[in-house]
Amino acid sequence: MSGLERLSLNQKTTNSWTLREAIEGCVAAGLSSIGVWREPLQDMGVDAAAKALADAGLRVSSLCRGGFLTAEGDGAGRHAIADNTEAILEAAGIGAQCLVLVVGGLPEGSRDLPGARGRVRDRLAELVPIAHDHGVRLALEPMHPIFTADRGVLATLGEALDLAEAFDPQDVGVVVDTFHVWWDPQVDAQIERAAGRIASYQVCDWITPLPADTLLSRGMMGDRHIDFRRLTGLVEAAGYDGDIEVEIFNADVWAADPSEVVTTMSERYLQHVVTG
Amino acid sequence: MSGLERLSLNQKTTNSWTLREAIEGCVAAGLSSIGVWREPLQDMGVDAAAKALADAGLRVSSLCRGGFLTAEGDGAGRHAIADNTEAILEAAGIGAQCLVLVVGGLPEGSRDLPGARGRVRDRLAELVPIAHDHGVRLALEPMHPIFTADRGVLATLGEALDLAEAFDPQDVGVVVDTFHVWWDPQVDAQIERAAGRIASYQVCDWITPLPADTLLSRGMMGDRHIDFRRLTGLVEAAGYDGDIEVEIFNADVWAADPSEVVTTMSERYLQHVVTG
Repeated sequence: MSGLERLSLNQKTTNSWTLREAIEGCVAAGLSSIGVWREPLQDMGVDAAAKALADAGLRVSSLCRGGFLTAEGDGAGRHAIADNTEAILEAAGIGAQCLVLVVGGLPEGSRDLPGARGRVRDRLAELVPIAHDHGVRLALEPMHPIFTADRGVLATLGEALDLAEAFDPQDVGVVVDTFHVWWDPQVDAQIERAAGRIASYQVCDWITPLPADTLLSRGMMGDRHIDFRRLTGLVEAAGYDGDIEVEIFNADVWAADPSEVVTTMSERYLQHVVTG
Repeated sequence: MSGLERLSLNQKTTNSWTLREAIEGCVAAGLSSIGVWREPLQDMGVDAAAKALADAGLRVSSLCRGGFLTAEGDGAGRHAIADNTEAILEAAGIGAQCLVLVVGGLPEGSRDLPGARGRVRDRLAELVPIAHDHGVRLALEPMHPIFTADRGVLATLGEALDLAEAFDPQDVGVVVDTFHVWWDPQVDAQIERAAGRIASYQVCDWITPLPADTLLSRGMMGDRHIDFRRLTGLVEAAGYDGDIEVEIFNADVWAADPSEVVTTMSERYLQHVVTG
């Protein structure tokens, strides 16, 4: 299929594939970009992965994921910095265009949302110089408010930009993920404001009724409620012309044959996501 | 128990009770306010309900609910206006302090979120003079973004205020429901901005993991993640000193003995919700 030049397969969409299988799957499908996850990357080894990615001629649109910066206490803070430093080295090792940060939810038993947000701000400030030294761009991912309590206290693109704007756009960008931002009445204005800071554009659909495990509630583009072309248009109007990554957490998608998932993903991308 | 002067039982919390039973339950528990739902009100009849409420000396903190303004087409629009006019008459008939409006989700098969929001704005403008003529205050309820697709395209307090501000605060107010707004990074500023427009303050908790039916995912105050005292403080700083309504959609709560639910609710209210 032509028209797939900017399409990137986020590994999570084909969750049963190893990284090597995902690389081969991208090549077989005529894709030129992949979003990599840390666990399969560590399974393969960074050097071996870097070589395989280069041999395949694939761009790495993102490494998923660092973050989880909200735990209380200095020890937890040091642990978070150490783990994210490792992620930064991995991102540098495979030439990832950004390291996606999912900032973490409320610590167990805590109701102090402003406090958790404050720790994200403080620990991000510690990470930025480390990432800068390794030439890695950090990408703050605002998450749908369904995940504020247990996954990501950064709930809107506006809040992500408030944090990011303390830093150079090449050091700290943001992720625009349709699943997380589509509902936001401010999405037009905030995507416009994000010009120069969009480090990653990810797509998947919001489906109803939500599956019982809401973590796995993401749909294939076109399945349900999101107007992708409108959001793609906004992102492009903000100057973003980079890869468009498909990241789907969904038990049914994961149970299907990964090659068929890549085919469906490519078709739906052309049908629903790209403009013009 | 003393300290319950502002506590209101939203009928939905004791879902198995008829309106007459709920009125008796409030009196037995020493409460002086109730939030009424339309279906049980219609079952009892507005005149009978008005007499029973007056005899019991109960305030009616809200009537739930009108709204559902997003369907496409003129016929659907007329139907929505007619149904809401009926709700306005019911609210007037029992002296409800406000009629809560849940604005509705995307029409089946539609991905046009800006269009749905536009219909809410237009149809609200039709309803306001009708409500005004009957002395009923409309209360726009922003809903958690988990419900944007299928229940309420009004996703934030800021968006509700943008709509409300076209009208007199006595005609159009907003609902601050902790479940719907607790995650919002702008919640402090928007509650402050809502001064004079807070028509209803509702409380229940955000619980994780979310129950399989997310419509029934609301918890008893203190169960999980929300810092109620902080939000109550913000609402009071904005000048709101009215009733505090407990509205819980939860299968476990509904399966319990309603009298015990009211007792637990009163205890948790004193423990977690009221300030000072």
